[in-house]
Amino acid sequence: MGQTPYLRLDVARMEANLAAAAHSCAQAGVGLRPHAKTHKCPQIAERQLAAGAVGLTVATIGEAEVFAGDGARDLFIGYPLWVDEADRSRLAALTATGVRLTIGCDSVEAGTRLAGLDVSVLVELDSGHHRSGVPAERAGELAAELSELGLDVAGAFTFPGHSYSPGAGATAAEQETAALAQARDELRSSDVETRVLSGGSTPSLAYSGTVANELRPGVYVFGDAQQVELGTIGFDQVALTVISTVVSHAGGRVICDAGSKALGADRAAWATGYGRVLDVPDARIVALSEHHTTIEWPGALPGLGSTVAIVPNHACNAVNLNEYYQLSSGGRWPVAARGRNN
Amino acid sequence: MGQTPYLRLDVARMEANLAAAAHSCAQAGVGLRPHAKTHKCPQIAERQLAAGAVGLTVATIGEAEVFAGDGARDLFIGYPLWVDEADRSRLAALTATGVRLTIGCDSVEAGTRLAGLDVSVLVELDSGHHRSGVPAERAGELAAELSELGLDVAGAFTFPGHSYSPGAGATAAEQETAALAQARDELRSSDVETRVLSGGSTPSLAYSGTVANELRPGVYVFGDAQQVELGTIGFDQVALTVISTVVSHAGGRVICDAGSKALGADRAAWATGYGRVLDVPDARIVALSEHHTTIEWPGALPGLGSTVAIVPNHACNAVNLNEYYQLSSGGRWPVAARGRNN
Repeated sequence: MGQTPYLRLDVARMEANLAAAAHSCAQAGVGLRPHAKTHKCPQIAERQLAAGAVGLTVATIGEAEVFAGDGARDLFIGYPLWVDEADRSRLAALTATGVRLTIGCDSVEAGTRLAGLDVSVLVELDSGHHRSGVPAERAGELAAELSELGLDVAGAFTFPGHSYSPGAGATAAEQETAALAQARDELRSSDVETRVLSGGSTPSLAYSGTVANELRPGVYVFGDAQQVELGTIGFDQVALTVISTVVSHAGGRVICDAGSKALGADRAAWATGYGRVLDVPDARIVALSEHHTTIEWPGALPGLGSTVAIVPNHACNAVNLNEYYQLSSGGRWPVAARGRNN
Repeated sequence: MGQTPYLRLDVARMEANLAAAAHSCAQAGVGLRPHAKTHKCPQIAERQLAAGAVGLTVATIGEAEVFAGDGARDLFIGYPLWVDEADRSRLAALTATGVRLTIGCDSVEAGTRLAGLDVSVLVELDSGHHRSGVPAERAGELAAELSELGLDVAGAFTFPGHSYSPGAGATAAEQETAALAQARDELRSSDVETRVLSGGSTPSLAYSGTVANELRPGVYVFGDAQQVELGTIGFDQVALTVISTVVSHAGGRVICDAGSKALGADRAAWATGYGRVLDVPDARIVALSEHHTTIEWPGALPGLGSTVAIVPNHACNAVNLNEYYQLSSGGRWPVAARGRNN
């Protein structure tokens, strides 16, 4: 036990989530490359790899260093890195130890800065999320330009993040599939052989089509309140909570000590609040400040000093605010890549 | 310089913010007790105290330990702590070194757990923010109950956090003043002598009345995008930014590498976006994910690889996500109380 607020990880539920995703990917004949930014924890990465993951996805060089340091040998940095000389040295140090590195890229300018390193690149596609990435019809042209720089273009990737809206999972997956298929054809026209077509997000996972040969969900490992409210999972699949103490009953509500300092401040427009209470589906987290959570509670309030298990809206950000996981099975695992922001 | 994203602190602007608040509090004859949760940094606390602050406010025992370790001698934990035996030992260890501790309290149950410690308490009032705290008309009754436990009740405090809405600063300050005045009278009726009447938030600071004798603003030290959008300050008073690299021009927008991992995910309903760009008032941060900021930019885009100074919506949460301040004057200060969540 730790002093509240702290992260509690139900290891059995997490193992079930890992096994379910590994099974569905194996059945579909697609490689699972989980996004490790969600958990930032070597012990969890080891279990994902043991369950059959083909490698890991990370967001920063710092995350790559942490997982490579723990023995991971095949890492995709799924981000359009803009590297400087210091970054190039860090990437070279990783590949010098035998780590196979692939890096996202959506411009020839960024690719120029990667040239000469022993890395592969994946062209980033915008399949509808409208963040980074080129339209699929531009993929062949960019792939050819990157190849001319001497870079190994291994294929293309996209993040269908517009799946994060009620009912949007299937449509986002369709657009992901269409973008990957078009990119495959465009790359072929540019004489770039496509080895990797990578997609995936947790809400779209069940709908991913037959074009992607790698999928990169992150949150599936824990589940979170967003996934519950999107209907991706039930409360009984949520493995991660923030344990919080009831400090006040002011106004007939429950005030807990897990504020945005521990939960993160994420709140999508469609969310019912700033997280959910595990096993109390009718409770509503109506306000959140740095050190306070305000909960409208159905029925009798839990007593002052009792603990409440809060499901964060967005697991990734909650994890990044905590130093360790308190395991349901006893012991702790560190959030080793916490704050490895670059 | 650090690798992006990192916190940049304009020390001259911060010093001007400190001096302005110290001056206005001195003129009003009210004690300034800044909330150190905003900066979590001993070097900044030292400057606040040197500028005349009567002590510091903190939110957790862990924050109190950090600032006491740096020499602060008068600390108010402005939070309704629910302490266990371990917490009591920590509080006793602090007071044993001569630190004067005052703790917030809004229930006799929480007070019971503080009894016997060499601390004072302030009754917490709800003056309209509707978080923790009792209504002012209940303050005398609670003060009497706490006194009967042998606790030194030094007065009352409130956080007028409903000032965080456009145009609400003056009204919130009026309600703060009314609640403190009523509590003072209620405590007097309960034969509790009131030494401290404490209020204050950054948006309401300019409107605080003549009843409070201590004020506890936090964000004033840096300013942030919320304060700019509330009209509390201008861009030219913002001392804290997150320096970020432009990694993509996808969709004709600016994609930067400072996501919610560095800025925090705070976004009030009335905010224009997920932060602001310093000195580019017409830029709009329209989307934020853990590692990406999406900015709609007026006119020619800043080049790939250039840096952009982003003003976070909520300085406290942004600070808590970073390890250090990169000073405009050179050097670094640590965010020493980062993650001291309990």
